[in-house]
Amino acid sequence: MLSSSSQSPLAGRSVQTVRYELITLGDELLLGLTANTHLTFIGSALGRQGARLTRNVTITDDAEAIATQFRESWARSDVVITTGGLGPTCDDRTREVIAGVLGQELVFEESIREAIEARFKRLGRTMTENNLKQAYRFSRGEVLPNANGTAPGLWVEQDGRVLVMLPGPPNELNPMLIEQVLPRLARLGLLAEREAYVQIRTAGVGESALEIRLQPILQPHGSALSIAFCAHAGQVDVRLSSPTGERSLAQLEAVAAECAQSLGEDFMCYGHDSLAKVCADLLRAGEHTLAVAETATGGSLANAFTDICGASKFFAGGCVCYSNESKMQLLDVPECLLAQHGAVSAENAVAMAAGVAERLGADFGLAITGFAGPCGGTKENPVGTIYIALYTPCGVWSRKLCQPGPRPTVKQRAVNGALDWLRRELVRSSRRTADATAPGTADCQRIPGHQQG
Amino acid sequence: MLSSSSQSPLAGRSVQTVRYELITLGDELLLGLTANTHLTFIGSALGRQGARLTRNVTITDDAEAIATQFRESWARSDVVITTGGLGPTCDDRTREVIAGVLGQELVFEESIREAIEARFKRLGRTMTENNLKQAYRFSRGEVLPNANGTAPGLWVEQDGRVLVMLPGPPNELNPMLIEQVLPRLARLGLLAEREAYVQIRTAGVGESALEIRLQPILQPHGSALSIAFCAHAGQVDVRLSSPTGERSLAQLEAVAAECAQSLGEDFMCYGHDSLAKVCADLLRAGEHTLAVAETATGGSLANAFTDICGASKFFAGGCVCYSNESKMQLLDVPECLLAQHGAVSAENAVAMAAGVAERLGADFGLAITGFAGPCGGTKENPVGTIYIALYTPCGVWSRKLCQPGPRPTVKQRAVNGALDWLRRELVRSSRRTADATAPGTADCQRIPGHQQG
Repeated sequence: MLSSSSQSPLAGRSVQTVRYELITLGDELLLGLTANTHLTFIGSALGRQGARLTRNVTITDDAEAIATQFRESWARSDVVITTGGLGPTCDDRTREVIAGVLGQELVFEESIREAIEARFKRLGRTMTENNLKQAYRFSRGEVLPNANGTAPGLWVEQDGRVLVMLPGPPNELNPMLIEQVLPRLARLGLLAEREAYVQIRTAGVGESALEIRLQPILQPHGSALSIAFCAHAGQVDVRLSSPTGERSLAQLEAVAAECAQSLGEDFMCYGHDSLAKVCADLLRAGEHTLAVAETATGGSLANAFTDICGASKFFAGGCVCYSNESKMQLLDVPECLLAQHGAVSAENAVAMAAGVAERLGADFGLAITGFAGPCGGTKENPVGTIYIALYTPCGVWSRKLCQPGPRPTVKQRAVNGALDWLRRELVRSSRRTADATAPGTADCQRIPGHQQG
Repeated sequence: MLSSSSQSPLAGRSVQTVRYELITLGDELLLGLTANTHLTFIGSALGRQGARLTRNVTITDDAEAIATQFRESWARSDVVITTGGLGPTCDDRTREVIAGVLGQELVFEESIREAIEARFKRLGRTMTENNLKQAYRFSRGEVLPNANGTAPGLWVEQDGRVLVMLPGPPNELNPMLIEQVLPRLARLGLLAEREAYVQIRTAGVGESALEIRLQPILQPHGSALSIAFCAHAGQVDVRLSSPTGERSLAQLEAVAAECAQSLGEDFMCYGHDSLAKVCADLLRAGEHTLAVAETATGGSLANAFTDICGASKFFAGGCVCYSNESKMQLLDVPECLLAQHGAVSAENAVAMAAGVAERLGADFGLAITGFAGPCGGTKENPVGTIYIALYTPCGVWSRKLCQPGPRPTVKQRAVNGALDWLRRELVRSSRRTADATAPGTADCQRIPGHQQG
């Protein structure tokens, strides 16, 4: 029925020239009600295997819009991936519309019906009739079973092209892509084994300053090197690739290493690790433990660490202390300190960092307090004012940040600022340990003290 | 230089027929390194004012790709919005490429240079030469000043169409859209004053079951009513609109009210409020306070509440207790309980909920413990097992959820499950208060006790 890998319609093509296009369907995306996580997930999964999406188009659930867009994408691409519109309800039209464009029949597949019924039984629910809509497959196509939902995916090879149709819910789509779609694409020779670009992540430097600092290293390569900068909340990523293939991956890695060397502590990592992951690795390597306390960031700091699997190895815990009562009860912040300096103060940040570390017996304590806005704030400490404190085996210090902006931005910058400070301190601490000349207290005093502004 | 509102190129058009298209630029989007938050933000901002994006296309930073895509979008749309590629670095090409397509000159604007220089001075940094690239505007176009970054936005009216070019960083783009772009579009009559659709949010019902339950209400309207379902992690949204204009907004609202009525407690809210926001409103209305404790969800539960401005009014605080030590230290969980039942148990969840509420003097306590995976888990409690406990003025109960999946999905479902339980309890509690027949203990016993599975 279908071509096997030896009959690949795209055999012999280099992976970088395969034109992948993603069509994401759903009014909820265009109305901004749901984030387009499909693009993030599929784009990075393909990118990690040397393939690149050339385009992502998001359109409405409207039948005519789907047909028009699919025709365009099918004409200009080698692999078209669609997401959404395969579900049981009346607004799920993708299957029918695309079958029509490709001139295929939809045939009822008994095995899908059985799988859907079994799923409902397992969950102790009754299957409603509308679910049977999902039991149809293309007459000349294959079914991608769905272990996490009712709508199976569909795989079609036609006109020397590949069509992959995936269900919308990310918990169904993501495992289907990883476990079924990528292996199939690899068998057809449409994926490489390695990434086609090298990325370095930096923290604490602006985008334009970074470009200037890296120019002496990057400019001599001219057009052989493609350079992309991407700034986000106190971090800037630099991606190096060789669109013409003039530079090998090993050469790109050598250039990246040169950049890393010249950036010193501003260099964070290669690849895609988050600031929290970099800190986690440093904590694990040094066999340190960490506890956190936060007000304004309300759990995002703790969450950044607990997103890492195995966090219990180094993460003792965290407190989100909105009320003064909770600061006293959970972190032993003295009432008189809060009365004298207020909750948004360097003094409170220091008391929180020390309090949480000592309560939980952790080596390091990281605390954030401030006004995330849009309400709150004082004349002295307007919205956007954040105090960060870091407790270490060598002492405890605080810093003030003042970057007004929307609430989520203020929260994210505060978290990134705190994580970057911890990262730099852990890097220095690991150097001190590695250093033959014993560190002693003298070395600790090199750490910047209480810094304002 | 530019047409004023009275000369609007699109004057007299109904807002719903204006074709808005969004072009998001950036390799980092197609490589899945950055989420496309522009689509979410711009789509919802337009949607709230009755306008709809018809399409969003994401393409690479490549000059030819930008030119080709812009030509296509410009030909078929009334308003084209671009994001990204206006920055100072070498991969920022949008301004130059689009000026070329539109046959416009780029002219140096002294006032922009001054603004950029002033910004660097304010931040105590030196302006590098590459920043001057951002000081060019279209010869027949206007500048949208950027209070939060260096790259200003650009506004062009040409060929009976509007072009809006916005900088990529969300903290620069978002205020520029709200403060400058939307008012300009409204002056041109391209935005309505109200939403063009009605949405109800539900929790705890599957998508297909929901459709069947709502069919008796929705089906009689036939094609006059457009219905869209959107499922996400234990919630399903239902959006009602009238594409042909056959139903007025008031009529849509009446249909939505009928749906809400028939759904009972499974109805969560109208509009776009999050589960946490709905709980927050119920807590504030009842003058209750809440404290939370969590392990597996690692701060996401606390974060869901602290994302709400003014959370300190009802949110006492939260603890993220990864270690047993922290459960004992912060929440007074007895050591023998942890030794006997383990940290992932109904008993520990109950102790955590009661512990955090009593420590912080809160009326309600919500706790989550479990295995988020992919590592961890036991034979009895495999990865995906979550215990939730709810402490109320009437007593404390626990529930077990078991939904395996990727770590972020398990975390989000656990948070949503806990929030939905709190929501239902707060709804019942407010009904009891409103009820003339005093509640008493007898009423409290109606709350389901410890439920397994």
